Amino acid sequence: LGIDAGVTTLHSSYDDLVADDSLDIVYVATPSLRHVEDSLRCLEAGRAVLCEKSMAPSAAEAERVLQCARRQQLFFCHGVWSRFFPAMADIRRVIDSGAIGEVRSVHCSFCQADGAGACSATLETGVYCAQFCLWAFGGAAPRVAGVTYALHPESQLDTHVSALLQFPCGGVGTIECSLGHASPREATICGTKGVLRVPYPFWCPTEFSVQTMSGPASQQWSEPQTYRTALPEIGGDFNFVNSQGLAYEASEITRCLRSGLLEAPAFDSEACLRVMQVITDIRAHWLPPTPVVS
Amino acid sequence: LGIDAGVTTLHSSYDDLVADDSLDIVYVATPSLRHVEDSLRCLEAGRAVLCEKSMAPSAAEAERVLQCARRQQLFFCHGVWSRFFPAMADIRRVIDSGAIGEVRSVHCSFCQADGAGACSATLETGVYCAQFCLWAFGGAAPRVAGVTYALHPESQLDTHVSALLQFPCGGVGTIECSLGHASPREATICGTKGVLRVPYPFWCPTEFSVQTMSGPASQQWSEPQTYRTALPEIGGDFNFVNSQGLAYEASEITRCLRSGLLEAPAFDSEACLRVMQVITDIRAHWLPPTPVVS
Repeated sequence: LGIDAGVTTLHSSYDDLVADDSLDIVYVATPSLRHVEDSLRCLEAGRAVLCEKSMAPSAAEAERVLQCARRQQLFFCHGVWSRFFPAMADIRRVIDSGAIGEVRSVHCSFCQADGAGACSATLETGVYCAQFCLWAFGGAAPRVAGVTYALHPESQLDTHVSALLQFPCGGVGTIECSLGHASPREATICGTKGVLRVPYPFWCPTEFSVQTMSGPASQQWSEPQTYRTALPEIGGDFNFVNSQGLAYEASEITRCLRSGLLEAPAFDSEACLRVMQVITDIRAHWLPPTPVVS
Repeated sequence: LGIDAGVTTLHSSYDDLVADDSLDIVYVATPSLRHVEDSLRCLEAGRAVLCEKSMAPSAAEAERVLQCARRQQLFFCHGVWSRFFPAMADIRRVIDSGAIGEVRSVHCSFCQADGAGACSATLETGVYCAQFCLWAFGGAAPRVAGVTYALHPESQLDTHVSALLQFPCGGVGTIECSLGHASPREATICGTKGVLRVPYPFWCPTEFSVQTMSGPASQQWSEPQTYRTALPEIGGDFNFVNSQGLAYEASEITRCLRSGLLEAPAFDSEACLRVMQVITDIRAHWLPPTPVVS
């Protein structure tokens, strides 16, 4: 188990693992509905944590984990790896340059057809859409203006969710996640002068393009200007597209730990909680509020 | 005026025009907020009418026109030219073949950056989005699950509207229209097995493509299968993209008139009213209900 991958130490239980003082950080990558419990266990044992998305099923549960990290003065990061891709910084530079004018709407979908009933679409793929929309609009908290959802008939987990978000600047986001059907899994940022497109897979992007649109009925389009970044050259087999890009997250988390930071600037607890609040507001359409054990 | 275009008769007033018994049909293409008045004037004078979109600002006003046509036993068609493009029939065949599985969501946007304040985004471009979504789901009336909008500060006309639609089958549509910013102006139909994309300009399509998605996390994509139809070969200058395709509508309306039909099967009064009802439900978010003069 793990020996082939260069693992030097194996622990026979989670309790043994978190008691290991030689660890710099624990990467919590258990099934997502265990993340709160496992993150708290690590933090309470004195371990810094990088927790896979979604770190919690709600903003209140996320807040519990973040408070524990603050109390313990330990580094914690919600591992939304998108935030660490160089393309995201490139997109930000293009937006800030005014190339597409003022950002007015963002649309993204992340639907896949092979997981319905086993987990929650909002927690599995919706969190990527929500974080992208919030990020594109600079992070301000939106209002959820509408939600449609479908629940799995047996597990009652959400299989398909679409939501309409309205941002304080007046801009609009539409997001769609599903574990029961396909979608292009692209993101589009629409501005007053043109459009920026992030093709599949938008949540771990290596490419995007910009087109300006002008003239009567916006019918004059510029040639698309395409921006590309190469992935880190890492060999081996991966289960998911662009997994090599996890190296960006790992590298930045290492830098944060070495610098003594308690949060990663690219996705700090404030940004994380805003995303979790949107997810919570969306899920409130079918879930009763959960009492938080503190 | 018009002589160069082969016009043989000119009338000095609308009243003279509608009194001309030699006319088979009047094409009402006045500014859209005049359409109800002008359509009624024609119908009451005994003329069949093809009325440019949007035929009315609300379902109630549309119903007034349709009732007048029925009372007069005259042909009337709401000229949403999309419905007459051969590509639409081709798309329907592909959907019915099961190539993308069961249709679960449809997204389309029609935003252009040069008309804010002069007209209503929902009436100008939103009607194309609404009709496409309804058509993709086979025509059943959806519930409007959420709306965001922005009004022009001076004219108070809607400049940007996004809406989330839920269909009786559980499927979802997201539509966006704007006269103040750009968008890709594409349509996407997402199914349980894959995705059908209609690129710009989706409302007068000559091309679409189909990709199936399978395997873990739907990461195996088929090569896109692309379908194309040539536009009618019509010379001259046009103001808008694919205007040659107006010939499809003209040809079908001619066939309807010659066959003695009172409605065009491709966009009959029932389909028209469903679209107008969605537009009305969306516009109800900022407009008070308008009393209808009957």
